[in-house]
Amino acid sequence: MVVVGSGFGGLFAVQELGRAPVEVTMISRTAYHLFQPLLYQVATGILSEGSIAPATRKVLRRQHNVRVLTGDVTRIDLAARTVTSTAPGKATVTPYDSLIVAAGSGHSYFGRDDFAEHAPGMKTIDDALTLRGRLFGAFELAELETDPAVIERWQTFVVIGGGPTGVEIAGQIAELTRRTLPGEFRTVDPARSRIILFEAGPEVLPGFGERLSDKAARELRRVGVQLRTGTKVVGVDETGVDVVAADGTRSRIEAMSKVWAAGVAASPLGAQLAAQCGAELDHAGRIAVEPDCSLPGHPEVFVVGDMMSLAGLPGVAQVAMQSGRHAAAEILRRLRGAPTRRPFRYRDRGNMAIVARFSAVASVGRLRLAGFPAWLVWLLVHLIYLVGFRSRLTALLDWAVAFGGGRSERTVTLSAIRGLAPETPPHSTSDHRSAHPTDGRSR
Amino acid sequence: MVVVGSGFGGLFAVQELGRAPVEVTMISRTAYHLFQPLLYQVATGILSEGSIAPATRKVLRRQHNVRVLTGDVTRIDLAARTVTSTAPGKATVTPYDSLIVAAGSGHSYFGRDDFAEHAPGMKTIDDALTLRGRLFGAFELAELETDPAVIERWQTFVVIGGGPTGVEIAGQIAELTRRTLPGEFRTVDPARSRIILFEAGPEVLPGFGERLSDKAARELRRVGVQLRTGTKVVGVDETGVDVVAADGTRSRIEAMSKVWAAGVAASPLGAQLAAQCGAELDHAGRIAVEPDCSLPGHPEVFVVGDMMSLAGLPGVAQVAMQSGRHAAAEILRRLRGAPTRRPFRYRDRGNMAIVARFSAVASVGRLRLAGFPAWLVWLLVHLIYLVGFRSRLTALLDWAVAFGGGRSERTVTLSAIRGLAPETPPHSTSDHRSAHPTDGRSR
Repeated sequence: MVVVGSGFGGLFAVQELGRAPVEVTMISRTAYHLFQPLLYQVATGILSEGSIAPATRKVLRRQHNVRVLTGDVTRIDLAARTVTSTAPGKATVTPYDSLIVAAGSGHSYFGRDDFAEHAPGMKTIDDALTLRGRLFGAFELAELETDPAVIERWQTFVVIGGGPTGVEIAGQIAELTRRTLPGEFRTVDPARSRIILFEAGPEVLPGFGERLSDKAARELRRVGVQLRTGTKVVGVDETGVDVVAADGTRSRIEAMSKVWAAGVAASPLGAQLAAQCGAELDHAGRIAVEPDCSLPGHPEVFVVGDMMSLAGLPGVAQVAMQSGRHAAAEILRRLRGAPTRRPFRYRDRGNMAIVARFSAVASVGRLRLAGFPAWLVWLLVHLIYLVGFRSRLTALLDWAVAFGGGRSERTVTLSAIRGLAPETPPHSTSDHRSAHPTDGRSR
Repeated sequence: MVVVGSGFGGLFAVQELGRAPVEVTMISRTAYHLFQPLLYQVATGILSEGSIAPATRKVLRRQHNVRVLTGDVTRIDLAARTVTSTAPGKATVTPYDSLIVAAGSGHSYFGRDDFAEHAPGMKTIDDALTLRGRLFGAFELAELETDPAVIERWQTFVVIGGGPTGVEIAGQIAELTRRTLPGEFRTVDPARSRIILFEAGPEVLPGFGERLSDKAARELRRVGVQLRTGTKVVGVDETGVDVVAADGTRSRIEAMSKVWAAGVAASPLGAQLAAQCGAELDHAGRIAVEPDCSLPGHPEVFVVGDMMSLAGLPGVAQVAMQSGRHAAAEILRRLRGAPTRRPFRYRDRGNMAIVARFSAVASVGRLRLAGFPAWLVWLLVHLIYLVGFRSRLTALLDWAVAFGGGRSERTVTLSAIRGLAPETPPHSTSDHRSAHPTDGRSR
């Protein structure tokens, strides 16, 4: 049996198999299992990579029936029942009897892939480290400037998309500029930064209901985020974005730092599978599966998590975990000779998002929480779900630092900061001679 | 006044200035202050970047007389008294009255810069993350192979240079293969890895004296490192190294993973300064300074730390810290009108290196410690010198994980693993069909 992907869907599927007498090969592009809901905290300097991305093979080391292979799955052949994956310098073909495809989703720039370079998204550790470099690097580069217009451009942060990721990252950038960075710069005043959150729909956090959306919006404004709902981003380039408001007015915002948290597109493996079995794809490239999460005409193949289109279920961690488990359970039942093809039933355990320090919104069952109580629930749930004692303790410690306005993980690598602007030729030259007299008893 | 570099020399110089009535501009290529002696622990997955590389401007935020600029210093003009630095898209010219140059050192491949691609060194956070990717990535790629010769090549780790960095990294790779990784792979047996440490001289840790060198050598062998002293590495390519033993015998070791911890070369700014003032450069590109660390003929310019050649002082953290402080004190005395040109006096506070778990060597004053007592001293000293409470606590926690055989920070980014082998075309294709039957009740 083969599992593609080491995210929530893949990992929970493999763990459901336990020590069952099945040989499992898990193939994943990353050697780590990513706790994706906390990725924005790596990007904003709160957590280290290790806290949210343990090595998959370490997590699964005691499951001796599991073999973990690192590789980018480029081809699934439903007729030959093989999975082809590539790693640097190496292609591997793995046959399967049963298959669970949990390759997740990437960004969708709605056909404008040229946006990607200027507005990176948030799906992998590499994405988060790139964004970290751009956020902290923006202030480093602003500090070198003397032209107020250029400084303002560096200090304007645009977040595109008002779902949980967009809201959380906008809130954290605001905290960063208001609480972490002030006092560290001499030219730039980080507290004067603009953080603008664009959402095409009428409200942020649409899945949370009107009351919580309103509370989140109010809270975002309180911490300094400018909300622009009903506004579409139609252009993204090196120095800014072009937007169209609900009333059709077009405007331009000059901003060096942009984050894409809008469109999501299922792994292209979905389209590949659909082409082979005739299944339908939805607008996000998700594949329409049978009620048991299997592929039409291929009861031996399951598609779960963000890649699956079933009964309008959202692309959230809980759906991935539960559908991964369901698919694994189905395979085990077939091996045992028990009746299969049970429909997948999703239990909605709720939804939550951090908006600011000590403030979150949470929708759990019939409960709608906002502010501090929601934040406490968030803290508890995330401590439970983080993998490993050390990760929990370090995360708690790093969160304590962040509540105090600090950031534990601000290290910006050269490769990350280099993406900010073309290295040569320099745009401009500053002479600090006049602006900044050195030496002498000037103070 | 301008300080070039945010390492030990630059940081200690700036801190020595305290709140003195001097305007200081610190210019550094990295936005972080690196605790370089622990860099190998970032490379081997023990510590996160944030623990050893806090943002320089955060460390210095309360020194209101200091301005921190991020930029690569490309030119120092002694006649015009200016420093030119570049950042992405930006060149900056900063004039100075006094200058402290503490730009440190990089790797020297002894004229063979083509070695660099295959045997990265250990000087920056980027270096450490690249090496982390190569170390953990080597096992990921080995696990995909079926040819024993290819697997062995992935499992052979060559460390070039038997100083503290080489010894520490070799010891940690051994721990990794013997204690962290076993049980996580199905094809590869990490404990069968070869770790080979090459040192051109007759012994490892030459600065520590014969007794401690012997102890360190014995301890390295105990944990599984093969020592090859008196052996020169004369060739480094993608798949291995060529070496010449003391008796002239040439041999070849097949190894995909190589670490360079041998040659050190002072920043090229040294040569630039020497050309302008006629000072001498030693074999490592270090500039011969006056007894007070100033540049010959330029009492307003000081060269400290790894860039300075003075009385045979070694390129270690303590020398950088103390010479940086000395230069700053000299500048303060001149501003106060006190007599200057006092010669720099180095107080040797000792030397230490971790060899394996709970085992170190330390040479402090007349004391020569080895094994557990030396390890305790190491632990204490490093806890004291790490910057910030959170870094100390996290480091202690991460060290506790490492003593238990774990590694907290194993996350390998795609960009790091990509350097391991050419992405296309693949070297080979494995078919896991025969080697690894899937599904079925085979266990």
